[in-house]
Amino acid sequence: MTETNYDIIILGAGPAGLQAAIHSARKGLKVLILGKNDKSSLWWAHIENFCCTLEISGEQILKTGQQQAESFGALFFNEDVLKIVAPDLMSADGNVFTIQTETKVFKTKAIIICTGTTRNKLGVPGEKDLFGKGVSYCVECDGNFFRNEEVAVVGGESAAAGGALHLTHLASKVHLVSKTFNFAPELMERLKNENIIIHEGAEVEKITGTSGVDGLVLKDGNKLDVTGVFIELGAKGVMSLAAELGISLDDSMKFIETDKQQRTNVPGIFAAGDICGPPLQMAKAVGEGCVAGLSAAKFVRRT
Amino acid sequence: MTETNYDIIILGAGPAGLQAAIHSARKGLKVLILGKNDKSSLWWAHIENFCCTLEISGEQILKTGQQQAESFGALFFNEDVLKIVAPDLMSADGNVFTIQTETKVFKTKAIIICTGTTRNKLGVPGEKDLFGKGVSYCVECDGNFFRNEEVAVVGGESAAAGGALHLTHLASKVHLVSKTFNFAPELMERLKNENIIIHEGAEVEKITGTSGVDGLVLKDGNKLDVTGVFIELGAKGVMSLAAELGISLDDSMKFIETDKQQRTNVPGIFAAGDICGPPLQMAKAVGEGCVAGLSAAKFVRRT
Repeated sequence: MTETNYDIIILGAGPAGLQAAIHSARKGLKVLILGKNDKSSLWWAHIENFCCTLEISGEQILKTGQQQAESFGALFFNEDVLKIVAPDLMSADGNVFTIQTETKVFKTKAIIICTGTTRNKLGVPGEKDLFGKGVSYCVECDGNFFRNEEVAVVGGESAAAGGALHLTHLASKVHLVSKTFNFAPELMERLKNENIIIHEGAEVEKITGTSGVDGLVLKDGNKLDVTGVFIELGAKGVMSLAAELGISLDDSMKFIETDKQQRTNVPGIFAAGDICGPPLQMAKAVGEGCVAGLSAAKFVRRT
Repeated sequence: MTETNYDIIILGAGPAGLQAAIHSARKGLKVLILGKNDKSSLWWAHIENFCCTLEISGEQILKTGQQQAESFGALFFNEDVLKIVAPDLMSADGNVFTIQTETKVFKTKAIIICTGTTRNKLGVPGEKDLFGKGVSYCVECDGNFFRNEEVAVVGGESAAAGGALHLTHLASKVHLVSKTFNFAPELMERLKNENIIIHEGAEVEKITGTSGVDGLVLKDGNKLDVTGVFIELGAKGVMSLAAELGISLDDSMKFIETDKQQRTNVPGIFAAGDICGPPLQMAKAVGEGCVAGLSAAKFVRRT
């Protein structure tokens, strides 16, 4: 990798970044993707809800996407970003961003941020080992795998309550577990009317099971005989880089705010995918990646 | 098909409608799709720019999508919609829409409009036969297939000019053909600066070729030796049904206006895909379909 000047640099090699690369590289622009696709939350996932692909592994999807982006001329470089410096309008190359990674310094006319989110972890035994085998961080994505089974949602915010409500239409029995609940009493009423079993004041000790989840043990010694545990503790979205660049966040202060063209408030910086907020779905990420890639290409061609 | 009451009825079985069906049916809702996927503009297309699928036919994509939506319980019914009646809030079933097709009457709590657009045709010999063999209605989609070839764009609006500009980065020579041009003089200057060959006052007589396009013949007898002809005469978007229901259009008055949740201004009516405006890309359609499916499901569950 000797070339350091690009038209568009994309941060993140998940589905949003890949789709953005495909659309912008196909327009003949010089595109670099910083990031490694096995860091995408999709890598370990099993996808059944993305049109129009029958059940397929996340790894397979992401490898195909990289191959596809490369076929249009996009380059990949696997280093983390340390610093981004906005254009110095007074300097000779007045309209380029500078991106510093571990060993390189790149220049680019536009940036697309597709770094996704990290789901907050519960931090109990069994959580990591049983991830994808009954432990999930996404009701939208995985609820359907638990039709007519007994499941628990862990979390005290309205997102956890909403997840529990959705699951009542799929699962045979739904538990909601949290030390405290932080949502409106009306919503709590609805949970009870839907026969959701509320465990207020409860803390999770561990998740049990070998090939799959077979229970959730609480600190008071109670054991819930669930085969699915949904951990809904929110997501860590925005990297500090965004704040440093003065990029506006949405009302929740967790996600980057964009318009329908996926432009942020900073000219030349675009964003797509989970980092722009829910639904945290591959289909939405790909759609926003397409729009961001085309918008960034338009921006570069006009500057 | 004996059941006539649904939670969500989706109009259109292209990628937006299929993805909306997948996401809403997976939530356990009763979902019906009205429309036949071989009517989608994608059916005859060849897709290379949709993550993360290597080159694949539109037909294959759409058949897989239908199979996938059906696997989650969505039903398909192949009849055109004749009339939609908004909920009569005074009646007993006060919050349902009535949809009349050729032989049936359906009731539904929510509607997702995914009927796409129809590209305006030029109506000259060769256009139909050579479609997909050098004739295209989408620079975004197909420009990349003409790297280092000579191409022509037909059209006099700014979209045609924009298409011609994009093609300068891919094709070896670009012609722009129209009887009149209807855009700013500055844009005409840019076209000339980019060495685009302007044919003002020209009308197309026919497109020639057998296995692929080999020329564009003008009414003045001139022949352009192009291998690609992009017809950029705009798109017919919105069906009269939208107008009847009081759905707001965007500023161009061609597409349905939605917010980021894909809601129209009419409660209970959502829209996704090409009918919401450019970019007219499968990736965007799928992203919007995902969001519309989840938004409609939320709407139904709350009403």
